[in-house]
Amino acid sequence: MECYVVVHNVAKRHNIGTLARSATAFGVSEMILVGKKDFNSFGSHGSAHHVRFRHFHSLLEARDYLKGIGCDICGVEITEGAVAVHKHPFQRSTAFLLGNEGTGLSPKEMEICDFFTYIPQVGSGTASLNVTVAASIVLHHFSGKLWAGFPERERDGQKFIVADRPARRQGLICSNPEEVTQARQQKKLSGSTDWLDSEEQAMAPDEQRIAGSLLGIFYD
Amino acid sequence: MECYVVVHNVAKRHNIGTLARSATAFGVSEMILVGKKDFNSFGSHGSAHHVRFRHFHSLLEARDYLKGIGCDICGVEITEGAVAVHKHPFQRSTAFLLGNEGTGLSPKEMEICDFFTYIPQVGSGTASLNVTVAASIVLHHFSGKLWAGFPERERDGQKFIVADRPARRQGLICSNPEEVTQARQQKKLSGSTDWLDSEEQAMAPDEQRIAGSLLGIFYD
Repeated sequence: MECYVVVHNVAKRHNIGTLARSATAFGVSEMILVGKKDFNSFGSHGSAHHVRFRHFHSLLEARDYLKGIGCDICGVEITEGAVAVHKHPFQRSTAFLLGNEGTGLSPKEMEICDFFTYIPQVGSGTASLNVTVAASIVLHHFSGKLWAGFPERERDGQKFIVADRPARRQGLICSNPEEVTQARQQKKLSGSTDWLDSEEQAMAPDEQRIAGSLLGIFYD
Repeated sequence: MECYVVVHNVAKRHNIGTLARSATAFGVSEMILVGKKDFNSFGSHGSAHHVRFRHFHSLLEARDYLKGIGCDICGVEITEGAVAVHKHPFQRSTAFLLGNEGTGLSPKEMEICDFFTYIPQVGSGTASLNVTVAASIVLHHFSGKLWAGFPERERDGQKFIVADRPARRQGLICSNPEEVTQARQQKKLSGSTDWLDSEEQAMAPDEQRIAGSLLGIFYD
């Protein structure tokens, strides 16, 4: 049983960082970026090193990949027919597709989904939740004791134990070798820092936001 | 049955904004700020107008208030004896005390808690969750169908229906009239904008972060 997160053109790139932190807390196998692949790992608190990222140019490519590995695709969206997350409408390995922060899932995004889940709200002051909050609640339901039963991580005092940082960074996996070459050249020209190393700068006392670039990319 | 959120010296003031958005989604009656009372409603997407804020100078004052209205105080912290949130260790109206983003709950904060809950993690890349994510998962468990049974809000298409903005803003309730006078003077001197109105500026296209000040404060 595995769990994936799919992000298509999320507008606020720093949301990816906090999302990566939740993804690793809840045992997500891969974060799949569709469309835009540059993002900012601010907010991940180093956890972006522990998550594998994969990039596709189109939703259909992402769908084909996920179907090939036996995943259902679940849209996280308040839509007719969506099942409340606490009812656990899951059946097998699942990839959760998150909507854009402003507009939610588009019709094109909805087309690749097998089913939908949403988080019931009880109060009157907001039309929807922050995208990372919504994703985290869904992952919490899917991965732990409530459904898939991934074993709980060991703790040391008031913290869960963080694994050693992987010796070889996870990087960003692209499906197209040309793209890797191109991105590396772009990186060389711009002189910008690696997108994972930029994390460490972002972790400096001031926690500035530093836009990531694309050195650490690999192809399958 | 009621639900409260208590925040003591949260370091990143913009976290309060996203927290307010989740608080209103999950039917929180009041957000209680202890210690620092200036915050930034960036991230609340207007929902800060729908939540009542209350301020106390000390944890003991906050505890007395909460005990006076029949609340348990539940620390959200990974600690020995903490019960996993999906086991719903709740008994009555509950106030959830959140730890500082870096260090979690301090011994002093723990002293005012009746019990603790935590969110199990299954992955290896992070020692803890973002404070708003953790709070949102706990509130989701407490308030809706899973435990307290607050009725679900009606929806319109892909959004929950947002109530009209309250005619008289909720503001910040302080227990001390002198404090209100002092804060209003401070506001007058600094010429800064109201902390709730600053929200609207923060909602402009660039979504700049604008530090809030304290005009909209009242006393009980």
